[in-house]
Amino acid sequence: MTKYIYEFGPDKTEGDASQKNLLGGKGANLAEMAKLKLPVPPGFTISTECCNHYFDLNGRFPDTLEEEILKAMANIESHTGMIFGDPKNPLLVSCRSGARSSMPGMMETILNVGLCTTTIPGLIKKTNNEWFVYDAYRRLIMMYSDVVMEKAEQIHPKDGMGIRLNLEMMMNNLKNDKGYDNDTDISTEDLKALCERFKKKIRENLGADFPDDPKEQLMGSIGAVFKSWNGKRAVSYRRIEHIPDNWGTAVNVQTMVFGNMGDTSATGVAFTRDPATGDNKFYGEWLVNAQGEDVVAGTRTPNPLNTDTKNSQNKHLPSLEESMPQLYKQLFDIRNLLEAHYKDMQDIEFTIQEGRLYMLQCRVGKRTATAALNMAMDMLEEGTIDERTMVCRLDPKILDDMLHPIVDPDAEKTAVKVAEGLPAGPGGAWGQIVFTAEDAVQWAKSDKNVILVREETNPEDIEGMRAAAAVLTARGGMTSHAALVARGWGKCCIVGAGALKINLATKELRVGTRVFKEGDIFTLNGTKGMVYQGQLKMKDASENVRFKAFMAIADKYRAMQVRTNADTPADAMTALDFGAQGIGLFRTEHMFYGADSDKALFLLRKMILSKTHEEREAALEELFPFVKEEIKTTLQIMDNLPVTIRLLDPPLHEFVPQSRENQQEIADALHIDIEEVFKRSEQLLESNPMIGHRGVRLGITYPEISHMQVKAIFEACAELIKAGKKPMPEIMVPVTCNEKELAFVRDIVTQCHDQTLKTYEIDALPYLYGTMIEIPRAALIADKMAEYAQFFSFGTNDLTQMTFGFSRDDIGSFMNDYIDNAILSSDPFETLDQEAVGCLVTTAVERGRKTRPEIKLGICGEHGGDPESVVFCHKAGLNYVSCSPYRVPIARLAAAQAAIMYPDCR
Amino acid sequence: MTKYIYEFGPDKTEGDASQKNLLGGKGANLAEMAKLKLPVPPGFTISTECCNHYFDLNGRFPDTLEEEILKAMANIESHTGMIFGDPKNPLLVSCRSGARSSMPGMMETILNVGLCTTTIPGLIKKTNNEWFVYDAYRRLIMMYSDVVMEKAEQIHPKDGMGIRLNLEMMMNNLKNDKGYDNDTDISTEDLKALCERFKKKIRENLGADFPDDPKEQLMGSIGAVFKSWNGKRAVSYRRIEHIPDNWGTAVNVQTMVFGNMGDTSATGVAFTRDPATGDNKFYGEWLVNAQGEDVVAGTRTPNPLNTDTKNSQNKHLPSLEESMPQLYKQLFDIRNLLEAHYKDMQDIEFTIQEGRLYMLQCRVGKRTATAALNMAMDMLEEGTIDERTMVCRLDPKILDDMLHPIVDPDAEKTAVKVAEGLPAGPGGAWGQIVFTAEDAVQWAKSDKNVILVREETNPEDIEGMRAAAAVLTARGGMTSHAALVARGWGKCCIVGAGALKINLATKELRVGTRVFKEGDIFTLNGTKGMVYQGQLKMKDASENVRFKAFMAIADKYRAMQVRTNADTPADAMTALDFGAQGIGLFRTEHMFYGADSDKALFLLRKMILSKTHEEREAALEELFPFVKEEIKTTLQIMDNLPVTIRLLDPPLHEFVPQSRENQQEIADALHIDIEEVFKRSEQLLESNPMIGHRGVRLGITYPEISHMQVKAIFEACAELIKAGKKPMPEIMVPVTCNEKELAFVRDIVTQCHDQTLKTYEIDALPYLYGTMIEIPRAALIADKMAEYAQFFSFGTNDLTQMTFGFSRDDIGSFMNDYIDNAILSSDPFETLDQEAVGCLVTTAVERGRKTRPEIKLGICGEHGGDPESVVFCHKAGLNYVSCSPYRVPIARLAAAQAAIMYPDCR
Repeated sequence: MTKYIYEFGPDKTEGDASQKNLLGGKGANLAEMAKLKLPVPPGFTISTECCNHYFDLNGRFPDTLEEEILKAMANIESHTGMIFGDPKNPLLVSCRSGARSSMPGMMETILNVGLCTTTIPGLIKKTNNEWFVYDAYRRLIMMYSDVVMEKAEQIHPKDGMGIRLNLEMMMNNLKNDKGYDNDTDISTEDLKALCERFKKKIRENLGADFPDDPKEQLMGSIGAVFKSWNGKRAVSYRRIEHIPDNWGTAVNVQTMVFGNMGDTSATGVAFTRDPATGDNKFYGEWLVNAQGEDVVAGTRTPNPLNTDTKNSQNKHLPSLEESMPQLYKQLFDIRNLLEAHYKDMQDIEFTIQEGRLYMLQCRVGKRTATAALNMAMDMLEEGTIDERTMVCRLDPKILDDMLHPIVDPDAEKTAVKVAEGLPAGPGGAWGQIVFTAEDAVQWAKSDKNVILVREETNPEDIEGMRAAAAVLTARGGMTSHAALVARGWGKCCIVGAGALKINLATKELRVGTRVFKEGDIFTLNGTKGMVYQGQLKMKDASENVRFKAFMAIADKYRAMQVRTNADTPADAMTALDFGAQGIGLFRTEHMFYGADSDKALFLLRKMILSKTHEEREAALEELFPFVKEEIKTTLQIMDNLPVTIRLLDPPLHEFVPQSRENQQEIADALHIDIEEVFKRSEQLLESNPMIGHRGVRLGITYPEISHMQVKAIFEACAELIKAGKKPMPEIMVPVTCNEKELAFVRDIVTQCHDQTLKTYEIDALPYLYGTMIEIPRAALIADKMAEYAQFFSFGTNDLTQMTFGFSRDDIGSFMNDYIDNAILSSDPFETLDQEAVGCLVTTAVERGRKTRPEIKLGICGEHGGDPESVVFCHKAGLNYVSCSPYRVPIARLAAAQAAIMYPDCR
Repeated sequence: MTKYIYEFGPDKTEGDASQKNLLGGKGANLAEMAKLKLPVPPGFTISTECCNHYFDLNGRFPDTLEEEILKAMANIESHTGMIFGDPKNPLLVSCRSGARSSMPGMMETILNVGLCTTTIPGLIKKTNNEWFVYDAYRRLIMMYSDVVMEKAEQIHPKDGMGIRLNLEMMMNNLKNDKGYDNDTDISTEDLKALCERFKKKIRENLGADFPDDPKEQLMGSIGAVFKSWNGKRAVSYRRIEHIPDNWGTAVNVQTMVFGNMGDTSATGVAFTRDPATGDNKFYGEWLVNAQGEDVVAGTRTPNPLNTDTKNSQNKHLPSLEESMPQLYKQLFDIRNLLEAHYKDMQDIEFTIQEGRLYMLQCRVGKRTATAALNMAMDMLEEGTIDERTMVCRLDPKILDDMLHPIVDPDAEKTAVKVAEGLPAGPGGAWGQIVFTAEDAVQWAKSDKNVILVREETNPEDIEGMRAAAAVLTARGGMTSHAALVARGWGKCCIVGAGALKINLATKELRVGTRVFKEGDIFTLNGTKGMVYQGQLKMKDASENVRFKAFMAIADKYRAMQVRTNADTPADAMTALDFGAQGIGLFRTEHMFYGADSDKALFLLRKMILSKTHEEREAALEELFPFVKEEIKTTLQIMDNLPVTIRLLDPPLHEFVPQSRENQQEIADALHIDIEEVFKRSEQLLESNPMIGHRGVRLGITYPEISHMQVKAIFEACAELIKAGKKPMPEIMVPVTCNEKELAFVRDIVTQCHDQTLKTYEIDALPYLYGTMIEIPRAALIADKMAEYAQFFSFGTNDLTQMTFGFSRDDIGSFMNDYIDNAILSSDPFETLDQEAVGCLVTTAVERGRKTRPEIKLGICGEHGGDPESVVFCHKAGLNYVSCSPYRVPIARLAAAQAAIMYPDCR
């Protein structure tokens, strides 16, 4: 027989904090506090396993559950001396959800379970407080009818309002009619009458009676909490937070204690340290004569817990320290005990019932990025935690907040939203909106702060994107052109804001009925994907000494190197500042995207639109010095560090000129008619360019292109060596699927290498030769690829595209449906799919190392900057990850944490 | 020490016919004939292994080779009594290539090696025939200078002509000057002088002397034969025939015998049975006083070997049977002995030197499809071979010739070629060329035979393609739209004939300087990809009783079922005739391509361009009866046989109307402006539709589409069951990459199934539910897919696309370079890539069977009709292959042969 119930309380406690998976976070910590002999009202936790069985049984309880519940209830009764359903001394309980990881507000709670016509008189007699009892009763009715009778039964309200809103309106009307200001003003008689009218309304709207039997209430509440695990809000939350559906929730049934039994009663929430700054100060809020929900609901301004918590808004209000010094002392001791025990900042809930303190919850407290950093460093310095623990205390995902200016969260609260999109580039920015790259460049020249708004961007927009403070597009996903470029630069960017209707002709933007014109000001929160009207206040998060110290400690534990994807000397500089240990991806073609490269782009186009081998050779010769110079500069900046230089990758049509003016210019240069330019461009068009003529395939059909690039690399190196530098180039062939492709290009590389040695009269030109692994076939035959490749760099963007058969440019049409229907738990372009893409990576690692044990292995897809994926890379045994410059610190931290958590993987 | 040399001859023979891999075909059979004590001139074979070592050593002989050669030459000398290089009794030898599989004319031969100024006088004295000796000498000079001195050394002729042509012109000029008609007319003195002038010319043009040392000649010849393995012609041939580069060639060095030593000498070639008809008749040609090359060169009309070989052209010429009855008798006995020994038709070469018969070659003879069939059946009936052997005697690839009308090969010899393309649809056809689908339909209506010529075809051309006798396109590959459709129909089709420049406006076609107009007549050989001018004679290859008997025997041995890919009732009928055992792929969308489905296509378009769920539901309801009817008809034809019905697969944009007229029609039907039609169409456009919103992804975003299709399937079945039929539908979900997609669609299937049972009041509706495996991820997680799928059908077209990252629509730009550079040995869309795509298939088979041992496994990609791939499918343990109707017999035979060759695979 599976044991479903774990009791906790002063007499008997069966679980502890380590059992979060089984008991949920709340249950495990209640048990732990009980073990620590803290004043926890007795109760029990129904396990998450029971929740899963409940769903397996299509919403039926396992047969043995009821018996277990009755037994556990009897134990509570014997401890408290109260009896559930007893007319004289009735026990009331709460039913609360509690999942493995906190899902705040996503699931349900029912309080005061056990109040009914038979128990009400006894409770009144016992508490001598009729008002209190009827207030508790109306709360139970409101919660129960909403959660158990309506939501859990999936009843769709006829009037579209839902029972909760109906009852609330009835209560509001009563207050208005009678001139009551607060809930506490309502008279007992009014409350009594209201409860009856509530019950009538429930019967009318839901077609069922509010149950008057305590046991029915209890079982209904438990079932409803289970069902709330699959409620719409909870499911959406899980999608966003990547929480698996099969974790399930536990249910905590616990003796009710009341903070609203008069002036010797109170309730509060507190943090063992300041969650905003991380300061080592006990921080909290409380209310006298109130129930827990009153503190968080915001209907009453809560009092400061102590002097430390006082601020300009609440300094006139009485603190618990002042009002109930004895109880505060007891709470403060508990705070110290919990911090010493958990060695981390705790978020606690407490209730004082008629002068007695009860602990209702304790969990690791949420904190801002700054607070997380400060607390971790403080606790290390205090000797509370060791370095490994400290390193793991900072969630790599929140580092972004520390590295970019952000929209002031306070300002954001009251801002007018324009639209929502995907958070493609981090941080915040404001500016005047413009609709073309040209305008962005022009306006920026006259020192205006601009936001470039486009349907979607393409390489011709690059200058405008650089000039703009932020980029906003109506179409595209997290790996669209705009997103990739912006993230690479660390520029604020929102993509796929579908609500925007752009009219280029009138330079207007419509969102529903609202119209915005060129020059109007928007503020973007690129970390959240929110677009606001007007200029919001920004917060600067500049250089942080403590952060540097933290990262220095983290770096000690890392097993993987962290490189950067950098396409320009400027990127390389930024990345070095962020601690990059080399370049993992230098995309040779990106030099044609920059603002200063008009001439180079023109020559590239000339080469692409060449008809004959001779024309192409001539164009390549003109192009050569530009390519060599760009490579040389980057190698110089990265002196003594490895730089992986990828040969030409994208399909050529991407570079074809789009504007009539540029087309004419090319026509003139090639001495052909503009019609011929159209024709040649058209010949380069492909049905599926992503899986078309690109990467090494270009190098096979036009070996002269590879030759030019490789020669540029070697000559740049030769010149640097002669100048006393130590370049470390790694020549990388993209889009390979066959070892013979590598053999083909290697011949060119060897030839250029030998020729350069001769030309420059030098003895050695050290380099590595390797390949991207981004096509499933390449991963599957990695043993053969490794015969030629000295390194593999996993291009997990493309590998994901091919493994899923998902074109990342086109997933917009169905990705949301996939997430909503739980077919995928996350966008595989954001977080690496370990099941299949990961399987190809580990296969390639294993097969590659078999052929060449010393092979160097890295990743240069977008996943290189995703913490979860970095952990995977560590486990897979890669030597390095490479990511965009602004993600380098994130990858460093994630890699350090991976090494600490999985020390045996290497 | 590796043994490189294997001797053969009357005294000592080291190899036999089983050693083809080591000795090449020619060497192995010379050894076998020697073992059979047939009169084989003694010699030796240098192994293919030596050839590989030669290339490993960058064109140097292994150190031990020369010693082995000298030893073997000494053995020949001791047997023949002649000495190599001896001034008195010189031995002459031939050097011939001989690869594992025959590569006729692709590699080199040098005869008369050993003739030089020191040996000439001795040979003259011995033969008493000065003319013969100088004729042999000039032949040696011509061959040697061409093969050894020019080609093997990769010398590019300065005058662009090459030494061979130079020497031939000198000989022709001599003949013209002196009025000689034939080579044999040239006087001895003229020959002597010519040889001296040859040597001078060689010195001038090649900068080296013709070697006068027998040993130098021999070693040079051996090296040149090795090098010819990597000659341009040989490499191209290997690409076409899929022969691996590392097989290498052997070299056969053999005592020269001469058929040109007067009227008691002769030479000939023969087949042990008639290679054209298969008749059991000794068939051959011979020439008196001639060398072997004279028979095949076509410069003299050869004599018939015997009475059986006489025909209208040669009946006046003397047969060997008549001229040399004794020798003919000896040869005839040898023929009988060889047939009895090899149990297959042999192609033999013989030479008679001064009344003595020598056997120079014996190998399995090439034959026509008809001959192959007849010989196999005859030999079975004669009791020479068993059924298994018989089944393996017919190459599945040549079955095409038996199933389609073909261009008369005789007519083809003299035809005027227009262009060449890819052989996309088999057989031959002639017709008047037209340039639009509409014209094709119109002209066909007035009973004209038309060939539809298009840049490339799209679904809107379907009617025209149906109406045309053949289809010819200037663009596209073997799996382009035109190719797929034509092959499916078994219609003659040539694609990618790049030389065609089509001008739609003038209805003209240019090929270089030639211009063809609408109405001009072309003849197409779709099996070879040749386009000819004018109307060529066709050969009908109708119903063949013997073929049916042959196939019936083959079917007994098959382990796999063979189904067909059929999209229409007509296809289904054809396939049944060809022996299909069900439908492996019924593409529901193809019903919208047919000529009679205007209304259905219109409704589909209406559905696709619907904006709201309601609009779409309404359109689907209108569409429903068409879909149901089409499915019902097909299930009825395939009564009692499985029919795999694939749910909607292609991206919706494929169906969007292209013509203004069709767009207006849709606009009217949807009560929207035509501009809105453009807009909605544009929204469906994708960057990479092949990996975009298609297959099950459509079914997830628009579950109503799947619902309509599944409902149509079940209702069609229900109606058939009520009519006493036994439909066996298998519902297949395309483009899946995740087991949850299957769970999602299964819910729809279950719901429709249950609903149909109720509606039709029937007890059972048997069906299977399964999926395509065409995305790498699906193959990798096949264990999970099998939790929901009762069958897998490998869609190896798409699986190849994703595994290679090759868009089959776009490979045209690089595939030729890949084949030419030996990066790929064949187009992976034609022959399954066993290394990686095959690895995914076997992985999926293994993982799928692990979860569900009884899972049904099949293949429905184009590879299902490719013999090599069928063998792979057998080895992989699939239950069936499915291919286009006209390929069903090919797949049946290939499957039978696979089962015979690999009986232990299942």
